[in-house]
Amino acid sequence: METGVQTTVPAEKSDVSAATKTPTTLSSDSIINFARGDPMLYEPYWKNKGDRCKMVTLGDELMSYFSNALNLCWFLMPELDCAIRRLHRVVGNAEADDRFIIVGNGSTQTFHALLYALSSGHPEPVSVVAAAPFYSSYPEETEFLQSRLYKWAGDANCFDKDGAYIEVVTSPNNPDGSIRHTVVNREGGKSIHDLAYYWPQYTPITHKADHDVMLFTFSKATGHAGSRIGWAIIKDKAIAAKIVKFVELSSIGVSKESQLRAATILGVISEDCQNPRLEEENFFEYGRRIMSSRWKKLREVVMKSNGTFVLPEYPRDYCRFTGEYTDSNPAFAWLRCKEGLNCEKLLKDECRIITRGGTCFGVEETYSRVSMLCSDAEFDFMLERLSTIKN
Amino acid sequence: METGVQTTVPAEKSDVSAATKTPTTLSSDSIINFARGDPMLYEPYWKNKGDRCKMVTLGDELMSYFSNALNLCWFLMPELDCAIRRLHRVVGNAEADDRFIIVGNGSTQTFHALLYALSSGHPEPVSVVAAAPFYSSYPEETEFLQSRLYKWAGDANCFDKDGAYIEVVTSPNNPDGSIRHTVVNREGGKSIHDLAYYWPQYTPITHKADHDVMLFTFSKATGHAGSRIGWAIIKDKAIAAKIVKFVELSSIGVSKESQLRAATILGVISEDCQNPRLEEENFFEYGRRIMSSRWKKLREVVMKSNGTFVLPEYPRDYCRFTGEYTDSNPAFAWLRCKEGLNCEKLLKDECRIITRGGTCFGVEETYSRVSMLCSDAEFDFMLERLSTIKN
Repeated sequence: METGVQTTVPAEKSDVSAATKTPTTLSSDSIINFARGDPMLYEPYWKNKGDRCKMVTLGDELMSYFSNALNLCWFLMPELDCAIRRLHRVVGNAEADDRFIIVGNGSTQTFHALLYALSSGHPEPVSVVAAAPFYSSYPEETEFLQSRLYKWAGDANCFDKDGAYIEVVTSPNNPDGSIRHTVVNREGGKSIHDLAYYWPQYTPITHKADHDVMLFTFSKATGHAGSRIGWAIIKDKAIAAKIVKFVELSSIGVSKESQLRAATILGVISEDCQNPRLEEENFFEYGRRIMSSRWKKLREVVMKSNGTFVLPEYPRDYCRFTGEYTDSNPAFAWLRCKEGLNCEKLLKDECRIITRGGTCFGVEETYSRVSMLCSDAEFDFMLERLSTIKN
Repeated sequence: METGVQTTVPAEKSDVSAATKTPTTLSSDSIINFARGDPMLYEPYWKNKGDRCKMVTLGDELMSYFSNALNLCWFLMPELDCAIRRLHRVVGNAEADDRFIIVGNGSTQTFHALLYALSSGHPEPVSVVAAAPFYSSYPEETEFLQSRLYKWAGDANCFDKDGAYIEVVTSPNNPDGSIRHTVVNREGGKSIHDLAYYWPQYTPITHKADHDVMLFTFSKATGHAGSRIGWAIIKDKAIAAKIVKFVELSSIGVSKESQLRAATILGVISEDCQNPRLEEENFFEYGRRIMSSRWKKLREVVMKSNGTFVLPEYPRDYCRFTGEYTDSNPAFAWLRCKEGLNCEKLLKDECRIITRGGTCFGVEETYSRVSMLCSDAEFDFMLERLSTIKN
């Protein structure tokens, strides 16, 4: 493991190539990258868990293609299946019982699989839409293979075409942290509910989500982005079977090593939530404490910018998981500059901070997205840089 | 780990759903599945390696998306990069020095990535061809997303269309074990050399392959199919960059757990080949001994069928790895029945053995493919069944 503080906040999703990749020690003149959401803030928590999260694999283990030949999702390890269902029961964020769980190589592959599953059988390419600001990788992920099954059709708020469509609903939303619902709501429309950030460290768990098609990812839930584990929770068996078919034809399943490790780590989280240990925070308490503290510090710096920057406000809400009214502490800060300013450029030129500008998300360049998931050292460095801007 | 003998020989590549999945104990009336190439024959070898192949992962390790931010293939673990290059040097089967190594989620994802990389920039869909009999999953893998970038165009031997094409050359070939070269050979054509079976246990290593685009997979090299690790060896930087882009947009990289495990296991193989241990076979000696013994037994049974079945003959050749003349022992037996018979049906009806018929591979139904990679118990059971057929 690399342990030194780096200027790179490594890749969040599919835009790695866009930004600085050279790791160097943080110094006063270095460019630092907050364009991507590599979730390194959770590393210290897992370091403290010691042997409880240790996974040992021998040379003759996990060799077969199959994980459970009797299951519709034949490549899903039963251990991960159980761990995912248990965690959703413990957190109460999604209905997983009596649903199909399909594992993918990250939620990215699962997203592709869903486009395939929800669009097959239509004579024309199905329109894929999401309300702006939308996750910046959806357009390219939808378009890059030039499939005849589906096409990117932009902002759901402006969607007025006839015909079949898929609306992607990210809630809490990436980039702006808002709670989202479908906006098109036309008969025959389908939706993908990307709930990557619907965990107690980011937002109050107000209800148990129960959509037809829900997506989660290990990366944002626990910070284990390197394992490439995502999962879909699906009501309809025929849709589930198509997702399985996609993963089969794309990669013949998903790393068993990663699946078992995810099962172990999700299991430890559930265990600690159900059977609290004296003077030990469970994972979500830790995550919420760190995120809440970061947001507090960031808001202070932004307030001192005298209106150069503005941050969204989020309503407090009752969290069924913690049993308290809690704040939203989104994984990204959605900064807005004064009218007429290019926020991404301003941050780069004035603060040597790389962020991702509003146009990537389908909105104005007055916005830019800043990752809140970096290491502590990087976060403090970012605040320091940001605080140098005065109107 | 499941250790009981099963009737299922789990999935080889993307045709899992086609066959029996129910694991039950082998019994005299059970249907046994040899349609798929789950490489379980290597399990006993790895069991004996004990701690040398053990991998331990702690909760805070391998968390970042990035593996090596300075490398073109930013998600490739440096340990795996080194282990792959070392193994190719030790075996002498492919030139990997001064080439780009790109890891994928199995060679299947890498194959998709190559189609994308080699077809982008053309105004019309690029034709994808392979000489029949060709690997049965190529057509569906090429077609299922209905990309405008490429299309399946069938048997390379009959390919007479104008325009850009990609020829897939599998050598030794799946299903028939033959050594293959490109057959179209037209200016501007591109080729993918799938060398999944170009290892000493299957075929003599007659030369160091040095094509522009070569594919390998951990599954068939060592038997670790559950890890989903494949790799491409690429000469051209622009092609390599497009492959990386594909893996980024499809799955944001490849499981680090699997990559580290593959690095460990490939490292043990190289080490044992370079520094032989007293009275211990290296992996390839073991694999070649088992495969050779299986082929000998199978040929005896086939000879006793009095012409009902015929097997291909392979020339002995000088193997640079072993320093001896050696036989070919392909991963699949390509059985041919008498003219007019349906081989797959005959094996199913008369022997209750599921195999994959010739039409899946673009040739006549007199052929069928039988996996040689199952466990010992399954293999003996198959021979017993096969020997009941007498003309």
